[in-house]
Amino acid sequence: MQKLVEGIHHFQRNYFSQEQKLFETLVEGQYPQALFITCSDSRIDPSRLTQTKPGELFILRTAGNIVPPYGAVHGGEAATIEYAVSALEVKDIIVCGHSHCGAVAGLLNPKLIEKMPAVKSYLQLAESTRRIVEENYAYLTDPQQRLMLTVEENVLVQLESLRTHPSVAAAIGRGKLNLHAWVYEFETGEVFSFDPDKGQYLPIQHRADFAVETAHMLPPI
Amino acid sequence: MQKLVEGIHHFQRNYFSQEQKLFETLVEGQYPQALFITCSDSRIDPSRLTQTKPGELFILRTAGNIVPPYGAVHGGEAATIEYAVSALEVKDIIVCGHSHCGAVAGLLNPKLIEKMPAVKSYLQLAESTRRIVEENYAYLTDPQQRLMLTVEENVLVQLESLRTHPSVAAAIGRGKLNLHAWVYEFETGEVFSFDPDKGQYLPIQHRADFAVETAHMLPPI
Amino acid sequence: MQKLVEGIHHFQRNYFSQEQKLFETLVEGQYPQALFITCSDSRIDPSRLTQTKPGELFILRTAGNIVPPYGAVHGGEAATIEYAVSALEVKDIIVCGHSHCGAVAGLLNPKLIEKMPAVKSYLQLAESTRRIVEENYAYLTDPQQRLMLTVEENVLVQLESLRTHPSVAAAIGRGKLNLHAWVYEFETGEVFSFDPDKGQYLPIQHRADFAVETAHMLPPI
Amino acid sequence: MQKLVEGIHHFQRNYFSQEQKLFETLVEGQYPQALFITCSDSRIDPSRLTQTKPGELFILRTAGNIVPPYGAVHGGEAATIEYAVSALEVKDIIVCGHSHCGAVAGLLNPKLIEKMPAVKSYLQLAESTRRIVEENYAYLTDPQQRLMLTVEENVLVQLESLRTHPSVAAAIGRGKLNLHAWVYEFETGEVFSFDPDKGQYLPIQHRADFAVETAHMLPPI
Repeated sequence: MQKLVEGIHHFQRNYFSQEQKLFETLVEGQYPQALFITCSDSRIDPSRLTQTKPGELFILRTAGNIVPPYGAVHGGEAATIEYAVSALEVKDIIVCGHSHCGAVAGLLNPKLIEKMPAVKSYLQLAESTRRIVEENYAYLTDPQQRLMLTVEENVLVQLESLRTHPSVAAAIGRGKLNLHAWVYEFETGEVFSFDPDKGQYLPIQHRADFAVETAHMLPPI
Repeated sequence: MQKLVEGIHHFQRNYFSQEQKLFETLVEGQYPQALFITCSDSRIDPSRLTQTKPGELFILRTAGNIVPPYGAVHGGEAATIEYAVSALEVKDIIVCGHSHCGAVAGLLNPKLIEKMPAVKSYLQLAESTRRIVEENYAYLTDPQQRLMLTVEENVLVQLESLRTHPSVAAAIGRGKLNLHAWVYEFETGEVFSFDPDKGQYLPIQHRADFAVETAHMLPPI
Repeated sequence: MQKLVEGIHHFQRNYFSQEQKLFETLVEGQYPQALFITCSDSRIDPSRLTQTKPGELFILRTAGNIVPPYGAVHGGEAATIEYAVSALEVKDIIVCGHSHCGAVAGLLNPKLIEKMPAVKSYLQLAESTRRIVEENYAYLTDPQQRLMLTVEENVLVQLESLRTHPSVAAAIGRGKLNLHAWVYEFETGEVFSFDPDKGQYLPIQHRADFAVETAHMLPPI
Repeated sequence: MQKLVEGIHHFQRNYFSQEQKLFETLVEGQYPQALFITCSDSRIDPSRLTQTKPGELFILRTAGNIVPPYGAVHGGEAATIEYAVSALEVKDIIVCGHSHCGAVAGLLNPKLIEKMPAVKSYLQLAESTRRIVEENYAYLTDPQQRLMLTVEENVLVQLESLRTHPSVAAAIGRGKLNLHAWVYEFETGEVFSFDPDKGQYLPIQHRADFAVETAHMLPPI
């Protein structure tokens, strides 16, 4: 804790003044452009990765960046998504998975989580991911490759769950909202974005990112 | 999105190299000291506020930093808390509310959220907060003061919910985990920490922060 | 049944007349001082134990005196607690466990209840108790001692759940309600009350009982 | 609390010694003959009413002696009933309502409970009672008579819920379990037992009580 408390004082002395004007205008309200859904993993920092300032990203973070289908769970995910879309009218939602994700590893290897009943029951919401990988990628035996591929598939599965939320479905219907599937490899700093036309993830481009209409990968050749 | 994509490239060109070594060691695993639970609000950035680096904070973010009591919701909150405490063995959990919180405002004024059924049902998990304020602070009529006080009470209510999670209860029982109640006033950069002895929030000190045993304020004088 | 029916006639002939006046005044309404939460066990009789008359104790009894956290179960426990606190304005809530509790035994030894699905799922609400004992008292191998200690911990865990109920949280907030943790050893007639300062249960004293603020035991030495 | 603590000491000094032998044998286990389901109301004391000793009655008490249908609520009622029937093999279950019941009054007059959401949602489990009375007894305008009749109907409705519990259904099927509907008028000390043949409640007789097969009253003449 000591470190955190000192960090706050460091922030107050050295950074706050530079941003004070920004923060004061933000008292009026927030107008984030996007909802960024990612993992609780301590190695991921969405604001640092996207170099965004306070007020720019509305952020939902839970273990494994899982989005329960609408109605499955009356928890924070549904409320946060609804608030972002209906109250804040964000234009984009990004679901961003990451390399070396412990939750996704638990999905592939239940032993890792057998003493964690709440994690176990939550991962059942990613059962589609597990089956897609099990049924389509049996040949993929290298653990690292398998984990990374599962992370990629999981993001697409969560995009489908996202579409089941009424506020999301309606906004997409009006052409007011785009969904994006990203995977962040923190050890290289690379971000891969799913290209629905090519049916695969590609290094993110300078031009505006792909909006994902059909969220599944092309069957492996 | 254009801005986010450019931000990423900016991060890759100008920041990643400085942190590459850190990120490479983090491939081995994460060892965060604390679980930081805060709101999805775009104006809040826990890592910036605490000046922490990747790997230091495990972060749960949902609208209104609400923690459902154990068993109430089988969602991401319970799983994320269990993973942080049982798998990562964090030593501290901070619940951090903030000024001008839209979710808490919706708690005080249901009209604001009446078109958001998922938000509405989620806020029922903060019903204790609403009643504490309604029954104990009728005299507090200034909307800003009332909102800020509700934010403060809400953090304490969520600490009580946190205690009902088995992993948390067990870790507290063996003296391995401390809970902390913070409120962040982003427009001034100030952070207030709840002092259980004084029964009130005080500006955060240099010395290590209070662990909260008795999570309620002293009755107003 | 024969015995019960005869008991009623015995009551009517020999006891009712003595209490008729009391019962007639009670038609006007009930004003119990406390809500007494205990087990359904036939060996426990709260009114006999406390030598209270009709009108003095509002009583909630279920197997294992378990209090579901608010929102976990929309059943009788939440309604009974809310009615006691909001409608009857009781000043004290006592959660009273007891020696040789079958429900708590089932928590320690799932084999005992494996054919009882409803009991099983209900005991999941005491999962905190199970983990606290498993993680902190491995050294305690004597079955009787282990059962009694689990009963003691379980009462404290249920107090934490109690705090998540809005009516309870609000009343504690305004200093109008105290919580008490008791354990009754029926074979000796002794009652032990949790002393939050000492972090242990002590034989109940003549002076008014402890109110429990911090509901966990000190880590075992 | 002072009164309760003194009551305990009074019990210990003056009563325990007489029952010590009984309590010591009860350490071996409990063998209650019946499960007694009644209201949490402080004016009701099942053991005093039936003049039973410790070990004779397994007791479930919640506001309004409501029994949720199996599966509706995974709470203490289902677990307690299952434990009584499957583990303790009780031969009889009595559901006992009482005069001047506040929960039943709330069922007839929602205004009384509009500030109690948990009570409200719990009383929805007695909606059948409300409708039976509303649809069949419109002519009954005297509030006292109407409340008492609703108490009577409510007990029968709860008997039907009881039959939906698998352990109960199976034991009835084996002829090992009987259900009984009682109403206790505490101001007169009278107990009325439902006679399925006559389709009405009658003062309880010396002979063994009626077992209720068909749990509804005959249509009013």
